[in-house]
Amino acid sequence: MIDVTHGTDQPTPSPSVRAERSRSTFVTPPSPTPPPVIVLVRPQLGENIGKAARAMLNFGLVELRLVAPRDGWPNPQAGPAASGADIVLEQAAVYDTVAAAVADCTHVYATTVRKRGVTKPVATPEAAARAIHADPGRAAILFGPERSGLETDDVALARTIITVPINPEFGSLNLAQAVILVAYEWSKGQELAQPPETEMPLPAPQGELDGMIAQLDDMLVAANFFFPPARTETVRRTLRTLLTKPGWSAQEVRTMRGVLAALDGRKARRSAPVERGEFIGDGGLDETLP
Amino acid sequence: MIDVTHGTDQPTPSPSVRAERSRSTFVTPPSPTPPPVIVLVRPQLGENIGKAARAMLNFGLVELRLVAPRDGWPNPQAGPAASGADIVLEQAAVYDTVAAAVADCTHVYATTVRKRGVTKPVATPEAAARAIHADPGRAAILFGPERSGLETDDVALARTIITVPINPEFGSLNLAQAVILVAYEWSKGQELAQPPETEMPLPAPQGELDGMIAQLDDMLVAANFFFPPARTETVRRTLRTLLTKPGWSAQEVRTMRGVLAALDGRKARRSAPVERGEFIGDGGLDETLP
Repeated sequence: MIDVTHGTDQPTPSPSVRAERSRSTFVTPPSPTPPPVIVLVRPQLGENIGKAARAMLNFGLVELRLVAPRDGWPNPQAGPAASGADIVLEQAAVYDTVAAAVADCTHVYATTVRKRGVTKPVATPEAAARAIHADPGRAAILFGPERSGLETDDVALARTIITVPINPEFGSLNLAQAVILVAYEWSKGQELAQPPETEMPLPAPQGELDGMIAQLDDMLVAANFFFPPARTETVRRTLRTLLTKPGWSAQEVRTMRGVLAALDGRKARRSAPVERGEFIGDGGLDETLP
Repeated sequence: MIDVTHGTDQPTPSPSVRAERSRSTFVTPPSPTPPPVIVLVRPQLGENIGKAARAMLNFGLVELRLVAPRDGWPNPQAGPAASGADIVLEQAAVYDTVAAAVADCTHVYATTVRKRGVTKPVATPEAAARAIHADPGRAAILFGPERSGLETDDVALARTIITVPINPEFGSLNLAQAVILVAYEWSKGQELAQPPETEMPLPAPQGELDGMIAQLDDMLVAANFFFPPARTETVRRTLRTLLTKPGWSAQEVRTMRGVLAALDGRKARRSAPVERGEFIGDGGLDETLP
């Protein structure tokens, strides 16, 4: 799943891939609302166009439009920076004006850094993503040139402004980072963004937990652990609470019983390590290997 | 608000600054839950450390820890890539091991790309951020090396795994992007951070948990538990996962250490029950009574 690396911009496998989802599920949203179009307005560097494409594809956006890219199009710097998101670059469409780029879109959003003297609703990426999923029709999201951002005339085309709430003492998002945050929020509304199913096994049946606690208790009695006698029941309750808290699975309870058996038997069996495996059995620690 | 630009990584003013936030509101959370620590485990390139610092500071995170950075520390490549986030780099602390880096943290999260054969809860960045705001105590979030991600042994230290639900056909987040998504989600909870729940005691600092695991490990080695040798590391990892899962408090960890000490010493001391209390001490089981 992890792409080829390029220069210093090596991908890290953190975080992750949801292998169980098919591509068709991903790219075609379950709702009738199409994915938003990402519009880079007068982008300066091909490398940043490539990085934006990579950011988009990570979260399932594939439609990129370029308005008057400074260095023309195609741009040989874009491909390497896209790190494999070639499909996005190959399908990118070029326009002369912002108006032409969004002519088929029903909702235009402008990402901006500061007030522009235009009175428009301002949304977070999260709120904008919800609106994009909820509103029928195609949305376009405008991103300005790297250095200067969108012009007032570009913003005037939009109905809504998107801003990311950011550290007022240090606001320094680059183009690809702005794109990735918006794409990430949009992806949450897709099927892929459901919270991952936890693969946690069920806690063991109470009887199995009780068996483990009884095994430990026997050992602790033999070790004269419960002292003074007046505190025995309190201590037992404390231990039960502590051992109930984990919600250990049946497998984990068996593992712990193997540990206890080993500790219980170690004096007698230290000279016969070859038999050690018997305490756990083949299944005892047979967790999936990494 | 926008920083000086560096090379191709020019910041764009989209999206933006929330001018209405004061710095104190932003950087110092209104809740008693401290901001999470970002831990880069064996990072390869100084440039990526700088980019991660920049990503952090955008969303108000300032505490960076580095575990065995490949090219040493400080690294002259980091500063320029940080684009002004110098305060994060200057305060970065370097550790030899992951265990040392998270020893004072009560909640350890590991960002991973794929299943690791360890059974732990998996959270999205959003869910993890909510948990970090809700749970008292300091959280650490581990990010692996750029190329390979976290090792299984690193993941074993964590109680929870963070994954970003991502395009299964194209998973290509780089280190700084992974950091920025996690930091961004955390920053959302700042304004409306809820009072943390206080019913549960804090999990013990990781260092105390490690002490307990080491104590058990010594006993199991003495008991020849780890057999056959080829499976030793797998078994150790299984036990660590199992013992990390409960989130035992410092008190509970002490209780378990008392239990282990009793089991360890019982053969020798069975004839001297009157001394048993010493293994735990008066405070050892002094938990609030049910």
